[in-house]
Amino acid sequence: MLNFSKCHSILITGASRGLGLEMVRQLLSTPERPKKNHRNRCRGTELQALAKSHPEVHVVTLDVTSDVSVNDAVQEVKSIVGADGLNCLINNAAINIHCDLDTVTRDVMMKTYEINTVAPLFVTKAFLPLLREAAGQGSGMGIHRSAVINVSSILGSVQLNWGEMGAPKLYAYRPSKSALNMITRSLAVDLEAEGILCVALHPGWVRTDLGGADADMSVEESISSVLPVICGLTEKDHGGFVSYNGETLPW
Amino acid sequence: MLNFSKCHSILITGASRGLGLEMVRQLLSTPERPKKNHRNRCRGTELQALAKSHPEVHVVTLDVTSDVSVNDAVQEVKSIVGADGLNCLINNAAINIHCDLDTVTRDVMMKTYEINTVAPLFVTKAFLPLLREAAGQGSGMGIHRSAVINVSSILGSVQLNWGEMGAPKLYAYRPSKSALNMITRSLAVDLEAEGILCVALHPGWVRTDLGGADADMSVEESISSVLPVICGLTEKDHGGFVSYNGETLPW
Repeated sequence: MLNFSKCHSILITGASRGLGLEMVRQLLSTPERPKKNHRNRCRGTELQALAKSHPEVHVVTLDVTSDVSVNDAVQEVKSIVGADGLNCLINNAAINIHCDLDTVTRDVMMKTYEINTVAPLFVTKAFLPLLREAAGQGSGMGIHRSAVINVSSILGSVQLNWGEMGAPKLYAYRPSKSALNMITRSLAVDLEAEGILCVALHPGWVRTDLGGADADMSVEESISSVLPVICGLTEKDHGGFVSYNGETLPW
Repeated sequence: MLNFSKCHSILITGASRGLGLEMVRQLLSTPERPKKNHRNRCRGTELQALAKSHPEVHVVTLDVTSDVSVNDAVQEVKSIVGADGLNCLINNAAINIHCDLDTVTRDVMMKTYEINTVAPLFVTKAFLPLLREAAGQGSGMGIHRSAVINVSSILGSVQLNWGEMGAPKLYAYRPSKSALNMITRSLAVDLEAEGILCVALHPGWVRTDLGGADADMSVEESISSVLPVICGLTEKDHGGFVSYNGETLPW
Protein backbone atom coordinates (compact mmCIF):
# COMPACT_ATOMS: atom_id res chain seq x y z
CA MET A 1 0.00 0.00 0.00
CA LEU A 2 1.17 3.49 -0.76
CA ASN A 3 2.20 5.42 2.28
CA PHE A 4 2.72 9.11 1.83
CA SER A 5 2.03 9.87 5.49
CA LYS A 6 5.41 11.53 6.13
CA CYS A 7 5.29 13.48 2.88
CA HIS A 8 3.29 16.60 3.65
CA SER A 9 3.48 18.28 0.27
CA ILE A 10 4.08 17.42 -3.38
CA LEU A 11 4.33 19.98 -6.16
CA ILE A 12 3.71 18.59 -9.64
CA THR A 13 4.31 20.76 -12.71
CA GLY A 14 2.21 20.13 -15.80
CA ALA A 15 -0.66 18.68 -13.77
CA SER A 16 -3.54 19.84 -15.95
CA ARG A 17 -3.35 16.76 -18.20
CA GLY A 18 -1.64 13.48 -18.93
CA LEU A 19 0.68 11.97 -16.36
CA GLY A 20 0.62 14.96 -14.01
CA LEU A 21 -3.17 14.96 -13.74
CA GLU A 22 -3.23 11.18 -13.22
CA MET A 23 -0.69 11.55 -10.40
CA VAL A 24 -3.08 13.92 -8.65
CA ARG A 25 -6.03 11.57 -9.23
CA GLN A 26 -4.26 8.50 -7.87
CA LEU A 27 -2.68 10.36 -4.94
CA LEU A 28 -6.18 11.39 -3.88
CA SER A 29 -7.24 7.77 -3.76
CA THR A 30 -4.43 6.64 -1.45
CA PRO A 31 -5.43 6.48 2.23
CA GLU A 32 -2.04 7.74 3.46
CA ARG A 33 -1.78 10.63 1.07
CA PRO A 34 -0.08 13.99 1.57
CA LYS A 35 -2.28 15.42 4.31
CA LYS A 36 -1.49 19.03 4.13
CA ASN A 37 -1.66 19.65 0.45
CA HIS A 38 -0.32 18.93 -2.90
CA ARG A 39 -0.46 21.52 -5.49
CA ASN A 40 -0.27 21.66 -9.20
CA ARG A 41 0.14 23.93 -12.08
CA CYS A 42 -2.52 24.95 -14.53
CA ARG A 43 -6.03 25.69 -15.45
CA GLY A 44 -7.22 22.27 -16.62
CA THR A 45 -10.92 21.97 -15.86
CA GLU A 46 -10.53 18.44 -14.54
CA LEU A 47 -7.79 19.54 -12.17
CA GLN A 48 -9.93 22.49 -11.06
CA ALA A 49 -12.77 20.10 -10.30
CA LEU A 50 -10.48 17.88 -8.23
CA ALA A 51 -9.29 20.92 -6.30
CA LYS A 52 -12.86 21.99 -5.58
CA SER A 53 -13.77 18.66 -4.07
CA HIS A 54 -10.43 18.11 -2.28
CA PRO A 55 -9.22 20.99 -0.12
CA GLU A 56 -5.74 19.46 0.09
CA VAL A 57 -5.30 20.12 -3.66
CA HIS A 58 -4.12 23.63 -4.48
CA VAL A 59 -3.93 24.73 -8.09
CA VAL A 60 -0.99 27.08 -8.63
CA THR A 61 -0.61 28.88 -11.94
CA LEU A 62 2.92 28.35 -13.18
CA ASP A 63 4.60 29.17 -16.48
CA VAL A 64 7.82 27.17 -16.10
CA THR A 65 9.62 29.31 -18.69
CA SER A 66 9.03 32.60 -16.81
CA ASP A 67 11.07 33.60 -13.76
CA VAL A 68 8.33 36.02 -12.71
CA SER A 69 5.67 33.31 -12.81
CA VAL A 70 7.94 30.79 -11.06
CA ASN A 71 8.78 33.26 -8.30
CA ASP A 72 5.10 34.10 -7.81
CA ALA A 73 4.38 30.38 -7.51
CA VAL A 74 7.14 30.00 -4.90
CA GLN A 75 5.50 32.70 -2.77
CA GLU A 76 2.09 31.09 -3.12
CA VAL A 77 3.40 27.62 -2.26
CA LYS A 78 5.38 29.05 0.66
CA SER A 79 2.21 30.55 2.11
CA ILE A 80 0.55 27.12 1.91
CA VAL A 81 3.32 24.84 3.19
CA GLY A 82 4.57 27.22 5.84
CA ALA A 83 7.40 26.10 8.08
CA ASP A 84 7.20 22.47 6.90
CA GLY A 85 8.73 23.41 3.56
CA LEU A 86 8.20 21.38 0.39
CA ASN A 87 8.85 17.64 0.53
CA CYS A 88 8.67 16.72 -3.11
CA LEU A 89 8.98 18.58 -6.41
CA ILE A 90 8.01 16.60 -9.51
CA ASN A 91 9.20 18.37 -12.67
CA ASN A 92 6.74 16.80 -15.06
CA ALA A 93 5.84 19.57 -17.55
CA ALA A 94 7.31 18.79 -20.99
CA ILE A 95 6.64 18.92 -24.71
CA ASN A 96 7.39 16.49 -27.51
CA ILE A 97 7.23 17.91 -31.01
CA HIS A 98 7.81 15.03 -33.41
CA CYS A 99 10.61 15.68 -35.87
CA ASP A 100 13.12 13.57 -37.71
CA LEU A 101 16.41 14.55 -39.37
CA ASP A 102 14.59 16.09 -42.32
CA THR A 103 11.93 18.02 -40.43
CA VAL A 104 13.77 19.22 -37.31
CA THR A 105 14.26 23.00 -37.07
CA ARG A 106 16.48 25.15 -34.88
CA ASP A 107 13.39 26.75 -33.33
CA VAL A 108 11.90 23.41 -32.30
CA MET A 109 15.23 22.35 -30.81
CA MET A 110 15.46 25.55 -28.77
CA LYS A 111 11.82 25.58 -27.63
CA THR A 112 12.02 21.95 -26.53
CA TYR A 113 15.23 22.58 -24.58
CA GLU A 114 13.73 25.65 -22.93
CA ILE A 115 10.70 23.73 -21.62
CA ASN A 116 12.07 20.21 -21.08
CA THR A 117 15.55 21.00 -19.77
CA VAL A 118 16.12 24.60 -18.73
CA ALA A 119 12.74 25.05 -17.01
CA PRO A 120 13.11 22.08 -14.60
CA LEU A 121 16.48 23.45 -13.50
CA PHE A 122 15.09 26.93 -12.84
CA VAL A 123 11.92 25.67 -11.16
CA THR A 124 14.16 23.58 -8.89
CA LYS A 125 16.45 26.54 -8.18
CA ALA A 126 13.47 28.69 -7.26
CA PHE A 127 11.93 26.10 -4.93
CA LEU A 128 15.26 25.20 -3.27
CA PRO A 129 14.58 27.32 -0.17
CA LEU A 130 11.35 25.38 0.45
CA LEU A 131 13.01 22.03 -0.32
CA ARG A 132 15.86 22.93 2.05
CA GLU A 133 13.34 23.87 4.73
CA ALA A 134 11.85 20.37 4.51
CA ALA A 135 15.26 18.68 4.24
CA GLY A 136 16.35 20.34 7.49
CA GLN A 137 13.55 18.55 9.36
CA GLY A 138 14.24 14.95 8.38
CA SER A 139 16.88 12.29 8.06
CA GLY A 140 17.73 9.73 5.40
CA MET A 141 16.67 10.42 1.82
CA GLY A 142 13.29 10.16 0.16
CA ILE A 143 10.01 11.99 -0.32
CA HIS A 144 9.40 11.82 3.45
CA ARG A 145 12.18 14.43 3.65
CA SER A 146 12.99 16.33 0.42
CA ALA A 147 13.18 15.19 -3.19
CA VAL A 148 13.43 16.48 -6.75
CA ILE A 149 12.02 14.07 -9.32
CA ASN A 150 12.68 14.99 -12.92
CA VAL A 151 10.36 13.19 -15.30
CA SER A 152 12.71 12.08 -18.04
CA SER A 153 12.30 9.31 -20.62
CA ILE A 154 14.02 6.15 -21.75
CA LEU A 155 14.31 8.05 -25.04
CA GLY A 156 16.83 10.26 -23.22
CA SER A 157 19.17 7.30 -22.76
CA VAL A 158 22.03 7.78 -25.23
CA GLN A 159 23.11 4.18 -24.82
CA LEU A 160 19.67 2.77 -25.63
CA ASN A 161 19.30 4.95 -28.76
CA TRP A 162 20.32 2.09 -31.05
CA GLY A 163 18.75 -0.73 -33.01
CA GLU A 164 15.03 -1.12 -32.37
CA MET A 165 15.12 1.49 -29.57
CA GLY A 166 16.69 3.93 -32.02
CA ALA A 167 13.67 3.84 -34.30
CA PRO A 168 11.81 6.83 -32.80
CA LYS A 169 13.85 9.72 -34.20
CA LEU A 170 12.62 12.68 -32.15
CA TYR A 171 15.62 14.92 -32.82
CA ALA A 172 14.38 17.66 -30.46
CA TYR A 173 12.97 15.55 -27.62
CA ARG A 174 15.75 13.00 -27.13
CA PRO A 175 18.64 15.45 -26.54
CA SER A 176 16.43 17.56 -24.25
CA LYS A 177 15.95 14.52 -22.00
CA SER A 178 19.65 13.48 -22.10
CA ALA A 179 20.45 17.00 -21.02
CA LEU A 180 17.81 16.82 -18.27
CA ASN A 181 19.44 13.60 -17.06
CA MET A 182 22.76 15.46 -16.85
CA ILE A 183 21.14 18.27 -14.88
CA THR A 184 19.55 15.74 -12.53
CA ARG A 185 22.98 14.25 -11.93
CA SER A 186 24.58 17.67 -11.33
CA LEU A 187 21.80 18.55 -8.87
CA ALA A 188 22.35 15.21 -7.13
CA VAL A 189 26.04 16.00 -6.70
CA ASP A 190 25.30 19.49 -5.37
CA LEU A 191 22.33 18.71 -3.11
CA GLU A 192 23.44 15.41 -1.59
CA ALA A 193 25.05 17.05 1.45
CA GLU A 194 21.76 18.77 2.24
CA GLY A 195 19.83 15.50 2.08
CA ILE A 196 17.78 16.40 -0.98
CA LEU A 197 17.20 13.32 -3.14
CA CYS A 198 17.44 13.88 -6.93
CA VAL A 199 16.42 11.30 -9.53
CA ALA A 200 15.49 11.06 -13.19
CA LEU A 201 12.35 9.00 -13.75
CA HIS A 202 11.14 7.17 -16.86
CA PRO A 203 7.34 6.83 -16.57
CA GLY A 204 7.04 4.32 -19.41
CA TRP A 205 5.79 4.89 -22.92
CA VAL A 206 2.31 6.18 -22.22
CA ARG A 207 -0.75 7.00 -24.31
CA THR A 208 -0.82 10.76 -23.66
CA ASP A 209 -0.78 13.76 -26.00
CA LEU A 210 2.98 13.51 -25.69
CA GLY A 211 3.43 9.76 -26.06
CA GLY A 212 0.89 9.28 -28.84
CA ALA A 213 -1.88 6.74 -29.43
CA ASP A 214 0.44 3.80 -30.19
CA ALA A 215 2.15 3.80 -26.80
CA ASP A 216 2.37 0.70 -24.57
CA MET A 217 0.58 1.85 -21.46
CA SER A 218 -2.44 3.82 -20.31
CA VAL A 219 -1.84 6.77 -17.97
CA GLU A 220 -3.51 4.75 -15.21
CA GLU A 221 -1.09 1.84 -15.69
CA SER A 222 1.91 4.14 -15.78
CA ILE A 223 1.08 6.11 -12.67
CA SER A 224 -0.03 3.08 -10.68
CA SER A 225 3.53 1.81 -11.21
CA VAL A 226 5.25 5.18 -10.84
CA LEU A 227 3.74 6.20 -7.49
CA PRO A 228 5.05 3.17 -5.55
CA VAL A 229 8.49 3.78 -7.14
CA ILE A 230 8.42 7.43 -6.03
CA CYS A 231 7.20 6.36 -2.60
CA GLY A 232 10.06 3.90 -2.21
CA LEU A 233 12.93 6.14 -3.31
CA THR A 234 15.90 6.05 -0.93
CA GLU A 235 19.53 7.19 -0.90
CA LYS A 236 20.32 4.16 -3.09
CA ASP A 237 18.41 5.85 -5.92
CA HIS A 238 20.02 9.28 -5.46
CA GLY A 239 21.52 10.52 -8.73
CA GLY A 240 20.04 7.59 -10.64
CA PHE A 241 17.80 6.98 -13.64
CA VAL A 242 14.81 4.96 -12.43
CA SER A 243 12.15 3.32 -14.56
CA TYR A 244 8.43 3.02 -13.72
CA ASN A 245 9.03 -0.64 -12.90
CA GLY A 246 11.81 0.17 -10.43
CA GLU A 247 14.65 -0.87 -12.74
CA THR A 248 17.71 1.32 -13.21
CA LEU A 249 18.27 2.55 -16.77
CA PRO A 250 21.63 3.22 -18.42
CA TRP A 251 22.46 6.81 -19.34
CA MET B 1 52.56 7.64 -39.14
CA LEU B 2 49.38 9.49 -39.97
CA ASN B 3 47.99 8.63 -43.35
CA PHE B 4 45.30 10.93 -44.67
CA SER B 5 46.04 10.03 -48.27
CA LYS B 6 42.53 8.77 -49.03
CA CYS B 7 40.86 11.65 -47.21
CA HIS B 8 40.70 14.46 -49.70
CA SER B 9 38.95 17.05 -47.61
CA ILE B 10 38.34 17.92 -43.97
CA LEU B 11 36.12 20.75 -42.78
CA ILE B 12 36.82 21.93 -39.24
CA THR B 13 34.51 24.44 -37.57
CA GLY B 14 35.98 26.80 -34.98
CA ALA B 15 39.46 26.59 -36.53
CA SER B 16 40.62 30.12 -35.72
CA ARG B 17 41.91 29.14 -32.28
CA GLY B 18 42.42 26.36 -29.77
CA LEU B 19 41.96 22.75 -30.82
CA GLY B 20 40.64 23.57 -34.30
CA LEU B 21 43.66 25.70 -35.18
CA GLU B 22 46.04 23.08 -33.81
CA MET B 23 44.34 20.41 -35.95
CA VAL B 24 45.10 22.52 -39.02
CA ARG B 25 48.71 23.05 -37.92
CA GLN B 26 49.39 19.38 -37.29
CA LEU B 27 47.56 18.22 -40.41
CA LEU B 28 49.87 20.46 -42.43
CA SER B 29 52.89 18.73 -40.96
CA THR B 30 51.78 15.20 -41.91
CA PRO B 31 53.30 13.94 -45.15
CA GLU B 32 50.13 12.13 -46.22
CA ARG B 33 47.75 14.97 -45.54
CA PRO B 34 44.50 15.84 -47.29
CA LYS B 35 45.86 16.80 -50.69
CA LYS B 36 43.05 18.75 -52.12
CA ASN B 37 42.11 20.98 -49.29
CA HIS B 38 40.90 21.33 -45.82
CA ARG B 39 39.00 24.34 -44.91
CA ASN B 40 38.09 26.09 -41.76
CA ARG B 41 35.91 28.70 -40.33
CA CYS B 42 36.99 32.13 -39.20
CA ARG B 43 39.13 35.14 -39.42
CA GLY B 44 41.91 34.23 -36.98
CA THR B 45 45.13 35.86 -38.14
CA GLU B 46 47.16 32.73 -37.49
CA LEU B 47 44.79 30.66 -39.57
CA GLN B 48 44.88 33.27 -42.32
CA ALA B 49 48.69 33.08 -42.30
CA LEU B 50 48.57 29.28 -42.60
CA ALA B 51 46.16 29.58 -45.52
CA LYS B 52 48.46 32.06 -47.28
CA SER B 53 51.43 29.73 -47.12
CA HIS B 54 49.47 26.53 -47.80
CA PRO B 55 47.16 26.59 -50.83
CA GLU B 56 45.42 23.42 -49.63
CA VAL B 57 44.01 25.39 -46.68
CA HIS B 58 40.85 27.33 -47.46
CA VAL B 59 39.39 29.67 -44.89
CA VAL B 60 35.60 29.68 -45.05
CA THR B 61 33.65 32.19 -43.00
CA LEU B 62 30.98 30.34 -41.07
CA ASP B 63 28.58 31.44 -38.35
CA VAL B 64 27.32 28.06 -37.14
CA THR B 65 24.18 29.62 -35.64
CA SER B 66 23.02 31.15 -38.96
CA ASP B 67 21.38 29.09 -41.69
CA VAL B 68 22.25 31.78 -44.25
CA SER B 69 25.93 31.67 -43.32
CA VAL B 70 25.96 27.86 -43.20
CA ASN B 71 24.32 27.61 -46.63
CA ASP B 72 26.79 30.10 -48.09
CA ALA B 73 29.62 28.00 -46.65
CA VAL B 74 28.16 24.87 -48.23
CA GLN B 75 28.21 26.54 -51.66
CA GLU B 76 31.78 27.71 -51.17
CA VAL B 77 32.98 24.28 -50.00
CA LYS B 78 31.10 22.62 -52.84
CA SER B 79 32.95 24.76 -55.37
CA ILE B 80 36.26 23.66 -53.83
CA VAL B 81 35.68 19.93 -53.32
CA GLY B 82 33.76 19.42 -56.54
CA ALA B 83 32.61 15.92 -57.40
CA ASP B 84 34.72 14.29 -54.68
CA GLY B 85 32.37 15.61 -52.00
CA LEU B 86 33.43 16.16 -48.40
CA ASN B 87 35.18 13.30 -46.59
CA CYS B 88 35.21 14.60 -43.05
CA LEU B 89 33.27 17.20 -41.08
CA ILE B 90 34.65 18.02 -37.63
CA ASN B 91 32.10 19.96 -35.57
CA ASN B 92 34.54 21.59 -33.20
CA ALA B 93 33.15 25.11 -32.57
CA ALA B 94 31.87 25.40 -29.00
CA ILE B 95 31.65 27.68 -25.99
CA ASN B 96 32.02 27.03 -22.28
CA ILE B 97 30.67 29.73 -19.99
CA HIS B 98 31.52 28.71 -16.44
CA CYS B 99 28.51 28.63 -14.16
CA ASP B 100 27.48 26.67 -11.11
CA LEU B 101 24.04 26.16 -9.58
CA ASP B 102 24.02 29.67 -8.13
CA THR B 103 25.28 31.56 -11.16
CA VAL B 104 23.67 29.71 -14.08
CA THR B 105 21.06 31.71 -16.03
CA ARG B 106 18.42 30.69 -18.55
CA ASP B 107 20.17 32.80 -21.20
CA VAL B 108 23.52 31.06 -20.73
CA MET B 109 21.81 27.67 -20.91
CA MET B 110 20.07 28.59 -24.16
CA LYS B 111 23.11 30.24 -25.80
CA THR B 112 25.31 27.26 -24.95
CA TYR B 113 22.77 24.81 -26.36
CA GLU B 114 22.41 26.87 -29.52
CA ILE B 115 26.14 26.81 -30.25
CA ASN B 116 27.27 23.49 -28.77
CA THR B 117 24.32 21.28 -29.66
CA VAL B 118 21.90 22.73 -32.19
CA ALA B 119 24.58 24.20 -34.47
CA PRO B 120 26.50 20.92 -35.03
CA LEU B 121 23.23 19.24 -36.06
CA PHE B 122 22.35 21.98 -38.55
CA VAL B 123 25.89 22.26 -39.93
CA THR B 124 25.79 18.48 -40.46
CA LYS B 125 22.36 18.66 -42.11
CA ALA B 126 23.57 21.38 -44.46
CA PHE B 127 26.73 19.51 -45.46
CA LEU B 128 24.97 16.14 -45.87
CA PRO B 129 24.77 16.40 -49.67
CA LEU B 130 28.57 16.80 -49.83
CA LEU B 131 29.15 14.03 -47.26
CA ARG B 132 26.81 11.75 -49.22
CA GLU B 133 28.69 12.56 -52.43
CA ALA B 134 31.91 11.33 -50.80
CA ALA B 135 30.21 8.34 -49.16
CA GLY B 136 28.95 7.18 -52.55
CA GLN B 137 32.52 6.79 -53.76
CA GLY B 138 33.98 4.56 -51.05
CA SER B 139 33.43 1.43 -49.02
CA GLY B 140 33.82 0.58 -45.34
CA MET B 141 33.61 3.39 -42.83
CA GLY B 142 36.10 6.06 -41.86
CA ILE B 143 37.49 9.41 -42.92
CA HIS B 144 38.73 7.85 -46.16
CA ARG B 145 35.05 7.78 -47.10
CA SER B 146 32.70 10.05 -45.13
CA ALA B 147 32.59 10.96 -41.46
CA VAL B 148 30.98 13.37 -38.99
CA ILE B 149 33.08 13.91 -35.87
CA ASN B 150 31.36 15.85 -33.10
CA VAL B 151 33.84 17.24 -30.62
CA SER B 152 32.18 16.45 -27.31
CA SER B 153 33.70 16.17 -23.84
CA ILE B 154 34.05 13.67 -21.04
CA LEU B 155 32.09 16.30 -19.09
CA GLY B 156 29.14 15.32 -21.29
CA SER B 157 29.14 11.82 -19.82
CA VAL B 158 26.18 11.62 -17.41
CA GLN B 159 27.57 8.46 -15.84
CA LEU B 160 30.96 10.03 -15.08
CA ASN B 161 29.39 13.15 -13.52
CA TRP B 162 29.88 11.83 -10.00
CA GLY B 163 32.47 11.92 -7.22
CA GLU B 164 35.73 13.58 -8.25
CA MET B 165 34.60 13.84 -11.88
CA GLY B 166 31.48 15.66 -10.69
CA ALA B 167 33.48 18.52 -9.23
CA PRO B 168 33.41 20.80 -12.31
CA LYS B 169 29.84 22.10 -12.12
CA LEU B 170 29.39 23.71 -15.55
CA TYR B 171 25.58 23.68 -15.52
CA ALA B 172 25.34 25.02 -19.09
CA TYR B 173 28.20 23.14 -20.75
CA ARG B 174 27.63 19.60 -19.44
CA PRO B 175 24.02 19.16 -20.63
CA SER B 176 24.89 20.72 -24.00
CA LYS B 177 27.47 17.97 -24.53
CA SER B 178 25.19 15.16 -23.28
CA ALA B 179 22.65 16.40 -25.78
CA LEU B 180 25.32 16.52 -28.51
CA ASN B 181 26.17 12.90 -27.69
CA MET B 182 22.51 12.01 -28.20
CA ILE B 183 22.44 13.82 -31.53
CA THR B 184 25.61 12.02 -32.60
CA ARG B 185 23.93 8.73 -31.79
CA SER B 186 20.74 9.66 -33.68
CA LEU B 187 22.82 10.69 -36.70
CA ALA B 188 24.70 7.39 -36.46
CA VAL B 189 21.41 5.46 -36.57
CA ASP B 190 20.16 7.49 -39.53
CA LEU B 191 23.34 7.68 -41.62
CA GLU B 192 24.71 4.17 -41.12
CA ALA B 193 23.03 2.78 -44.23
CA GLU B 194 24.73 5.47 -46.33
CA GLY B 195 28.15 4.61 -44.96
CA ILE B 196 28.66 7.91 -43.12
CA LEU B 197 30.57 7.34 -39.88
CA CYS B 198 29.37 9.38 -36.86
CA VAL B 199 31.26 9.60 -33.57
CA ALA B 200 31.47 11.79 -30.48
CA LEU B 201 35.07 12.62 -29.56
CA HIS B 202 36.55 13.68 -26.22
CA PRO B 203 39.77 15.59 -26.98
CA GLY B 204 41.03 15.56 -23.38
CA TRP B 205 41.02 18.38 -20.87
CA VAL B 206 43.11 20.92 -22.71
CA ARG B 207 44.62 24.30 -21.85
CA THR B 208 42.55 26.42 -24.25
CA ASP B 209 40.32 29.46 -23.68
CA LEU B 210 37.58 26.90 -23.17
CA GLY B 211 39.42 24.41 -20.96
CA GLY B 212 41.20 26.97 -18.80
CA ALA B 213 44.76 27.28 -17.54
CA ASP B 214 44.58 24.39 -15.05
CA ALA B 215 43.84 21.73 -17.66
CA ASP B 216 45.90 18.55 -18.03
CA MET B 217 47.17 18.82 -21.57
CA SER B 218 48.55 21.32 -24.04
CA VAL B 219 46.75 21.72 -27.37
CA GLU B 220 49.75 20.08 -29.05
CA GLU B 221 49.51 17.00 -26.81
CA SER B 222 45.76 16.73 -27.32
CA ILE B 223 45.78 16.99 -31.09
CA SER B 224 48.83 14.74 -31.51
CA SER B 225 46.70 12.05 -29.81
CA VAL B 226 43.41 13.02 -31.44
CA LEU B 227 44.57 12.94 -35.08
CA PRO B 228 45.70 9.27 -35.03
CA VAL B 229 42.38 8.38 -33.37
CA ILE B 230 40.45 10.22 -36.10
CA CYS B 231 42.65 8.61 -38.73
CA GLY B 232 41.96 5.14 -37.37
CA LEU B 233 38.17 5.37 -37.00
CA THR B 234 36.32 2.39 -38.48
CA GLU B 235 32.81 0.93 -38.40
CA LYS B 236 33.62 -0.40 -34.92
CA ASP B 237 33.59 3.20 -33.66
CA HIS B 238 30.36 4.18 -35.43
CA GLY B 239 27.89 5.68 -32.97
CA GLY B 240 30.46 5.61 -30.18
CA PHE B 241 32.04 8.03 -27.70
CA VAL B 242 35.79 7.92 -28.30
CA SER B 243 38.47 9.50 -26.14
CA TYR B 244 41.71 11.13 -27.38
CA ASN B 245 43.57 8.03 -26.19
CA GLY B 246 41.36 5.70 -28.22
CA GLU B 247 39.35 4.46 -25.24
CA THR B 248 35.56 4.25 -25.36
CA LEU B 249 33.75 6.42 -22.81
CA PRO B 250 30.43 5.64 -21.12
CA TRP B 251 27.47 7.87 -21.92
